[in-house]
Amino acid sequence: MVEHGAFDPREFRNALGAFATGVTVVTAAAPDGTRAGVTANSFNSVSLDPPMILWSLARSSRSLGIFERAAYWAVHILAADQDHLSNHFAKSAADKFAGLEIETGIGGVPLLKDYATRLQCRTAFKYEGGDHVIFVGEVLSFDRRDVAPLVFHGGKYALAARKTEPAVLSGTSPRDSDISFGEDFLGYLLWRAAQHFQSRVTIHMQVQGLDPDTFMILAMLLHRDARSPKQLAAGMPPPAASNIDALLGALSARGFLTSADGPAGREIRLTAEGRAATLLIHAASRSIEADLLGRMEPGEAMALKHLIRRFIVQTDTGLPHPWQSAADD
Amino acid sequence: MVEHGAFDPREFRNALGAFATGVTVVTAAAPDGTRAGVTANSFNSVSLDPPMILWSLARSSRSLGIFERAAYWAVHILAADQDHLSNHFAKSAADKFAGLEIETGIGGVPLLKDYATRLQCRTAFKYEGGDHVIFVGEVLSFDRRDVAPLVFHGGKYALAARKTEPAVLSGTSPRDSDISFGEDFLGYLLWRAAQHFQSRVTIHMQVQGLDPDTFMILAMLLHRDARSPKQLAAGMPPPAASNIDALLGALSARGFLTSADGPAGREIRLTAEGRAATLLIHAASRSIEADLLGRMEPGEAMALKHLIRRFIVQTDTGLPHPWQSAADD
Repeated sequence: MVEHGAFDPREFRNALGAFATGVTVVTAAAPDGTRAGVTANSFNSVSLDPPMILWSLARSSRSLGIFERAAYWAVHILAADQDHLSNHFAKSAADKFAGLEIETGIGGVPLLKDYATRLQCRTAFKYEGGDHVIFVGEVLSFDRRDVAPLVFHGGKYALAARKTEPAVLSGTSPRDSDISFGEDFLGYLLWRAAQHFQSRVTIHMQVQGLDPDTFMILAMLLHRDARSPKQLAAGMPPPAASNIDALLGALSARGFLTSADGPAGREIRLTAEGRAATLLIHAASRSIEADLLGRMEPGEAMALKHLIRRFIVQTDTGLPHPWQSAADD
Repeated sequence: MVEHGAFDPREFRNALGAFATGVTVVTAAAPDGTRAGVTANSFNSVSLDPPMILWSLARSSRSLGIFERAAYWAVHILAADQDHLSNHFAKSAADKFAGLEIETGIGGVPLLKDYATRLQCRTAFKYEGGDHVIFVGEVLSFDRRDVAPLVFHGGKYALAARKTEPAVLSGTSPRDSDISFGEDFLGYLLWRAAQHFQSRVTIHMQVQGLDPDTFMILAMLLHRDARSPKQLAAGMPPPAASNIDALLGALSARGFLTSADGPAGREIRLTAEGRAATLLIHAASRSIEADLLGRMEPGEAMALKHLIRRFIVQTDTGLPHPWQSAADD
């Protein structure tokens, strides 16, 4: 427990950082037309009737004078892809609005065109709050878009990932949990999610007489043609890698590959037919991805990809990337 | 744009819901010892020096009287797994503290034992805020735990998933994005993440003379013994399913399976040796999972599993679950 008087500002800030928030940009204009805009995560709703919200601004802020004199200001709650705007308005600049597309709101307030929710307000109260001033605004009008929110937590940007109840997957049951690779086991979850994807892509492969292993060879060659069987095997997981000659034989028989002796040994190349088949499956995969992710809420798909990327980065052991191009070798 | 006067309370609430927040439980005690506790997401930090925070409470709240008279109160910022506490304190009850483990804080304030951050405060200001009262507290002491936060967004609980920069995976590069299944393609991300897992589990399989396909058969039998080859094939993805006889033959030769004709046809059973090998790999997988997830930040692992589950549920097409037990068939 940390007692008052002995507060380390950084520790106190870290403790407060446990409370996740959204991120807003608050804007106003002085009577002489000078525009002010600041990034604030100290926003919150206050009252429904009358509609009121609040935020607070450091007494040390250069923009304080403008906000203290402004009768009107606007709060822009930022969307998940707007961290650049948050960073932009958090830094000082001669004119933070230069180069941005701006609309003009009630009382001449500069309005940003992109946001999750935009609230145009009239100052209702200004309250003392230590080294900050608390602004309470009456909301005069608002605009809203159904987009994912930007989240700030522990000093970093984040995305909101909806919580789910356990034991919701068909075919699993909590009683399995002791000996099963059930729904709490990441290995199973990754495998199953990949299967939902794979089972639909596989149909398109079968039309071309392909399966995941043979398609993987074609996809590698699409990214860089003329590889040796050994180079191709290096990009594949063990069971398929050890079977590389049979896989290449099947693809040649299908007319998708040619094999020739080059200066560096045997070189495998895509035929025009192989290239066309690969691009067809590629396009189908993209459309399956769009369909699957379209079933999640806005933002969930983005958060899912971010988290899997985080997992991959954090657990990377230098596994070769199968699409690696020549410059990366 | 929605103009003042025509505000639909639900639309206004939805618009404000675009701002993600944490969730807190605020507690106090009246001079007569009556305890009050309310769930509030209207919390925010205000001032670093002096240390101050604020939250607001509806004038209609039954607990308002206690908080208005209380000189001291405590804010508990909730952790990701504490939505039950949020729900509990959001409902009215004769004594919300009954059955909870409580400590006593400064000024006799009832303190909860679990939290992400706990702030003990003295009322600094009470301000008018429409249909709410804004409480500004001076923070007298705080306790903090390094746990994942509970997030509230759009009226639902969520988890915070740290945002990542694009193009951070080794072996991928942004220039590939037009024709590649690169780091923005979910199919690739799932496959690669599964490989990070699989590549380490496979080593344990190889020690036993197994691979992912043969191990999958053993894992299915561990959950329900005595299945027919057809039942086993039904739980496997296509390439392995069509190869079921060869896989079963290899496992029998290894001494892991027995095959016998039962009343319903041929039945495959695990031998004691097969069972032991399966349990060993099972234990190794769990420990690999713990190691991999331990490299992520607290909460990220939980959010990752939640989101993959959401994806699986949203995209389920009735794929059979390989561990499905008899009662589920």
